[in-house]
Amino acid sequence: MDKPVNGKIDRLVWEAVRSGRPLTLCLTNFVTVTDCANAVLAVGGAPVMSLDSDDALELAGSAAAVVLNIGTVTASQLSAMLGTGQAARTAGKPVVLDPVGAGATRVRMDACMRILDEVGPSIIRGNASEILALDARRARKGPSRQKGVDAAGSEKIPQVEEAAASLSARHSCVVAVSGETDIIVQGQMRTDLSGGSELLTRVTGTGCMLSAIVGCCAGAVPEKLFGAAMAAMSAMKEAGARAEAKLAAPGSLGEFRSRLCDELSEIAVS
Amino acid sequence: MDKPVNGKIDRLVWEAVRSGRPLTLCLTNFVTVTDCANAVLAVGGAPVMSLDSDDALELAGSAAAVVLNIGTVTASQLSAMLGTGQAARTAGKPVVLDPVGAGATRVRMDACMRILDEVGPSIIRGNASEILALDARRARKGPSRQKGVDAAGSEKIPQVEEAAASLSARHSCVVAVSGETDIIVQGQMRTDLSGGSELLTRVTGTGCMLSAIVGCCAGAVPEKLFGAAMAAMSAMKEAGARAEAKLAAPGSLGEFRSRLCDELSEIAVS
Amino acid sequence: MDKPVNGKIDRLVWEAVRSGRPLTLCLTNFVTVTDCANAVLAVGGAPVMSLDSDDALELAGSAAAVVLNIGTVTASQLSAMLGTGQAARTAGKPVVLDPVGAGATRVRMDACMRILDEVGPSIIRGNASEILALDARRARKGPSRQKGVDAAGSEKIPQVEEAAASLSARHSCVVAVSGETDIIVQGQMRTDLSGGSELLTRVTGTGCMLSAIVGCCAGAVPEKLFGAAMAAMSAMKEAGARAEAKLAAPGSLGEFRSRLCDELSEIAVS
Repeated sequence: MDKPVNGKIDRLVWEAVRSGRPLTLCLTNFVTVTDCANAVLAVGGAPVMSLDSDDALELAGSAAAVVLNIGTVTASQLSAMLGTGQAARTAGKPVVLDPVGAGATRVRMDACMRILDEVGPSIIRGNASEILALDARRARKGPSRQKGVDAAGSEKIPQVEEAAASLSARHSCVVAVSGETDIIVQGQMRTDLSGGSELLTRVTGTGCMLSAIVGCCAGAVPEKLFGAAMAAMSAMKEAGARAEAKLAAPGSLGEFRSRLCDELSEIAVS
Repeated sequence: MDKPVNGKIDRLVWEAVRSGRPLTLCLTNFVTVTDCANAVLAVGGAPVMSLDSDDALELAGSAAAVVLNIGTVTASQLSAMLGTGQAARTAGKPVVLDPVGAGATRVRMDACMRILDEVGPSIIRGNASEILALDARRARKGPSRQKGVDAAGSEKIPQVEEAAASLSARHSCVVAVSGETDIIVQGQMRTDLSGGSELLTRVTGTGCMLSAIVGCCAGAVPEKLFGAAMAAMSAMKEAGARAEAKLAAPGSLGEFRSRLCDELSEIAVS
Repeated sequence: MDKPVNGKIDRLVWEAVRSGRPLTLCLTNFVTVTDCANAVLAVGGAPVMSLDSDDALELAGSAAAVVLNIGTVTASQLSAMLGTGQAARTAGKPVVLDPVGAGATRVRMDACMRILDEVGPSIIRGNASEILALDARRARKGPSRQKGVDAAGSEKIPQVEEAAASLSARHSCVVAVSGETDIIVQGQMRTDLSGGSELLTRVTGTGCMLSAIVGCCAGAVPEKLFGAAMAAMSAMKEAGARAEAKLAAPGSLGEFRSRLCDELSEIAVS
């Protein structure tokens, strides 16, 4: 496994975010949208959200990157995602797909398939269950079912890495899988990241925030998508670890949520 | 009034939540949806939200319970609620109705009536104004109007208890009324809970969070709905009281919001 | 520039909020809706949100004021805004327009133009980029483009003040511009406010919260709209400054968000 020198690329990415303040257009779910906006602000980007096809399409013109998160997708939102995503890709801008709960329902899986086929995202950022489900469907393996939107937790790393590599090859994109160990794959380039905090799974929105930050970073360095994903993923892991370490009350979910954006901000600007 | 032995049932409920990690499907309003997700996570459940009829219907298949919260209901969301709720009830799964602002508009009242008639929720969880409004409409009494979504605060406990009992009898369900004194009624079984914190009314979402937790508990012990409601209601009261007692800055709304999930988590897992 | 005596009017406004607990109906975006509800609660008002035309129309009947925030507007939401806004104006109730990102897309600008023409808001509350964009369009000047929803920061105060005055004259309304220096204009009456905190721009929702509070204050003193806007704007500036000053960890975004509502509450009730 080729491990790129981590710190140097990360610094380059965060410097580009700082200087470019990338406008990050998120077509995202209504559960974690506030957290996504605050996460992008925390790392130094400029978030903008939209629910309307025409509005999103026009915003895509000035956005540096587009994030498509299907967490509470509807038919009309999917239509906005497809149009906006295509416009962004045509303009050479990175598009991130967050396949929230892809393995849980047909609606979600079908939305992902259409985005994969009709948009062609630059980066897929999901949890292990989601990546396994996407790959199983794509490769016409038996279905990989997911209960709800969380990772099952029982997935083996080699199996997930294989699915990520297969998806990456098939769709010529970066695949970034978050979990106890993060896995990032783009063609022959692969890395993994350990660390983080178990508390990241105890509050809602950390996966969605991560995808939004991946989008922000990709918008800052569109020619270095692997590095962008890596910088964002390792920032979230590091922010989780630092936030947990600093908790006045160990295990405090409220304090953790509050500190998480602070640590993200600290990492991105220092 | 029969008072079941509180602590023992509560422990049983939380043990079931812990071991089952019930998937709690929430079709809910966009104001407090993040708080609902975090509340379910805090007590050990797995929240999942949906805005699409087909998606929700399929999620209902794997969900342990469904929560229907009409706080910002639209025609298309109501249609999703009816289909999903019916599927859950047909499969023997508990459905919780939160009749947010039922007495405030016809749209809200009509949505509640359709859910009561076409779904038949297992539990209704509302504030006093909402329960009085539902009962008044159902019993063709004069209208009981509500200004906005909050409880009027002037309701007398015996009057509310009577309305709750009448609704419970008519719809063969648990009726759980939160307020300064909580009232829980199922047929002849009744209990009330005092305590809590006035700050629960000073931040948005605590009622919705409570309904989501009631759903999570009901999903864990579907054969013990009264106990599920009681465990959830008393956990929220206790969490409110503890959170307020621990505030570094008395009256701090921000700190209270942050601590509330921590205390819920503490109560549910200990 | 006539500067009304600040403290006295502010006290009058907050006393009216306290005694009236104005029901503040918000038709608003899904990014910051929770923050808007908590902000209105913090200052002593009663927030209510709606996504449905009929529901909103009926709520407008009991609401003291209506806030129309186009941050993630859709065609159906705009239609609800127009109907609800007209009903409120016909009943002599104040309507606040928050033209989020008005200069960023045609959808947003067109929504603002229709609200200006068909509702006639009592107060427009936006940032400098939004006010400049609205005025440029209205006065058929060259377009004033905005990237995303944030203020460009490069706008000159005299230019913004002129745009605000022009909009105020044209639409017979209060125009309240938030920024490093706040500007409030109604006809010949003008004031500006300095102070505040740069952190207000580092977390999402503070502009939307401000518009919601402006609405709440306007609902409390509908005959004193300039004073209502001034009280709300200066409360947000003061709350931002106090919240920043009290941060245990300087620059902490999470702590700042948490403290902001506390300080708003403190200012409104003391």
